[in-house]
Amino acid sequence: MPLKPVFRPTLVLDENRCRMNIRSMAEKIKQVGCEFRPHFKTHQSKTIGRWFKEEGVSGITVSSPGMAQYFADDGWDDITIAFPFYPSQIKDLQRLEQKARLRLFINNSEHLSLLQSNLMKPFNFMIEVDAGYGRSGISKASTETIRNLLSEADKFSKANFKGFYIHDGRTYKSGSKEEIIRSVTPALNALSELKKMYPDCNTSLGDTPSASVLNSFDSIDELTPGNFVFYDWMQVQAGSCTLNEVALFACLPVAQLHESRNQAILHGGAVHLSKDYIVTNGKNNYGQLIKYSASENIQHIEYCFLTSLSQEHGTLTGDHSGYEFADELAWICPVHSCLAANLFDSYMTTDGYRISKRVLS
Amino acid sequence: MPLKPVFRPTLVLDENRCRMNIRSMAEKIKQVGCEFRPHFKTHQSKTIGRWFKEEGVSGITVSSPGMAQYFADDGWDDITIAFPFYPSQIKDLQRLEQKARLRLFINNSEHLSLLQSNLMKPFNFMIEVDAGYGRSGISKASTETIRNLLSEADKFSKANFKGFYIHDGRTYKSGSKEEIIRSVTPALNALSELKKMYPDCNTSLGDTPSASVLNSFDSIDELTPGNFVFYDWMQVQAGSCTLNEVALFACLPVAQLHESRNQAILHGGAVHLSKDYIVTNGKNNYGQLIKYSASENIQHIEYCFLTSLSQEHGTLTGDHSGYEFADELAWICPVHSCLAANLFDSYMTTDGYRISKRVLS
Repeated sequence: MPLKPVFRPTLVLDENRCRMNIRSMAEKIKQVGCEFRPHFKTHQSKTIGRWFKEEGVSGITVSSPGMAQYFADDGWDDITIAFPFYPSQIKDLQRLEQKARLRLFINNSEHLSLLQSNLMKPFNFMIEVDAGYGRSGISKASTETIRNLLSEADKFSKANFKGFYIHDGRTYKSGSKEEIIRSVTPALNALSELKKMYPDCNTSLGDTPSASVLNSFDSIDELTPGNFVFYDWMQVQAGSCTLNEVALFACLPVAQLHESRNQAILHGGAVHLSKDYIVTNGKNNYGQLIKYSASENIQHIEYCFLTSLSQEHGTLTGDHSGYEFADELAWICPVHSCLAANLFDSYMTTDGYRISKRVLS
Repeated sequence: MPLKPVFRPTLVLDENRCRMNIRSMAEKIKQVGCEFRPHFKTHQSKTIGRWFKEEGVSGITVSSPGMAQYFADDGWDDITIAFPFYPSQIKDLQRLEQKARLRLFINNSEHLSLLQSNLMKPFNFMIEVDAGYGRSGISKASTETIRNLLSEADKFSKANFKGFYIHDGRTYKSGSKEEIIRSVTPALNALSELKKMYPDCNTSLGDTPSASVLNSFDSIDELTPGNFVFYDWMQVQAGSCTLNEVALFACLPVAQLHESRNQAILHGGAVHLSKDYIVTNGKNNYGQLIKYSASENIQHIEYCFLTSLSQEHGTLTGDHSGYEFADELAWICPVHSCLAANLFDSYMTTDGYRISKRVLS
């Protein structure tokens, strides 16, 4: 594995595990009575998008007009751009509305007025709520700001208010299922309170850890996780999934072995994995060494991981004496699959075929 | 500025400053009597490569066969791949040797034997020396390994030994010119000792900080810096350059202002800047807010920088009350221009034209 020879750093996709992740999440979300509007920023691939369509998904989430256009060109016509609208997006949105119904994140009525004047068609909007995470959105405490914005919105015939959205990135820093639940509780409470105030609105929750581990979503109408399509080592550590659910790996050529110091230099650096890391045993961990198997359990090599990355070099540190570098390759479970995937123009499946994806611009 | 409207996160290139960096470095290296073999991994652009040709550069350095091919296709025919050779590169090298004379980094004689059998033409090779940095290369203390490798090399008619190379990444972590000089001294000493042992060999030094601040390179024959073409905030802090020499900036749309907490949310995340950071005032700094000027001094806004990044969001924190977000844009000096540049398919010059570059694969 993989069946085709790997000549350079390659992202290998386990299609079975990936389809299983999509199916399980779609079924679970159906069972708990929510709508599934998956975030496509992780895979950024039309081919993988179609696997979601096969599971009945019709509305999707993206993070920029450019990403929306990529998927609109493949027939997706109900797209949420989960990033605060800003005025210079107008030109891209004018092109986009010809193919898709848009849902935008709006923070103020000036933006609604601008969209009213510049878009041809009606558009939906959400209010992003900051439940204490401190990134974008309106603070949940700013009930008057929310009330004023919704009252202003009535003036704009093209603007349809759809509901409230929260993405709470703090869940990604958890270490167990219990911690994930504790982290997301303020967000759930905030959405629940808003639902009481605005009973007709939809409430939407964004993160993968919550969608993966919660079993009841009382006051939530929609879930928009993205990362679960591949998962990654950060999610394994957070308690969202097991290593057997991870569907994306970096296959990195071994450039040099330093046996005396328990290190290997891999061709795999910041331009392949990103510089995102978690801390393992007091050291930065930029990627975890694993033994891949398509049908058996995937195993990780304990305390053997990428301890530093430069642009193209990765330094694997730890006892890997039992590890067979088959075809002189190291299999690495990425720490953050969204960012690793963003650095490649395609995936290679374990069956040896290439799946193209959106390239950066 | 910039003259053309910016609709999305954009890398803006100051062509004058960039050409000045290339010219100054070329002149300095000529003056100190070394050969200039610049690393092209930072800009990855044929257009910018031609600016080097105008300054008399004929040999270049890259970090992978793919990058070498990109530049070979534009006529560069003397290319060093500054990354340890590994066997699965053979296929790419067979294609590459049809257009360019290659210089490879070799650690063992099995690899020389493999290249002898599989390449058509003679090739040059360097021995990368680890002067204590602990990444790739042969330890400077392993004089016997080096002697054996060179003695084995005589058996392979296609293999021409060119010399020794050191890239010491520790200089990037300096805080002043004096520290840079202290950091690179072990590397200079190692190359000097090797030069005494092998007087006919070339000695080659890789990092931008040393090339920028050292004024004498007694035992060094070649310099291969790359980052200086743009410089960045890390280099300003390391003491390699001033902010006025930085030639690449991220122009990021302001998505939301949080005035009460001295923050702004920018459209600019890990997919635009990478997650590389330096520490400023005890906080992670992923990008420094600046006031750009083409002809006057560029100014930085003290203690106002990107304190966190997610995939598409950047959180700018600090007092920016005097800052005018002209056209609702924030100008950010990237912390690490090599990694930011790697995330885009083009640069926009301050004159408003696009310069294409190599896209990831």
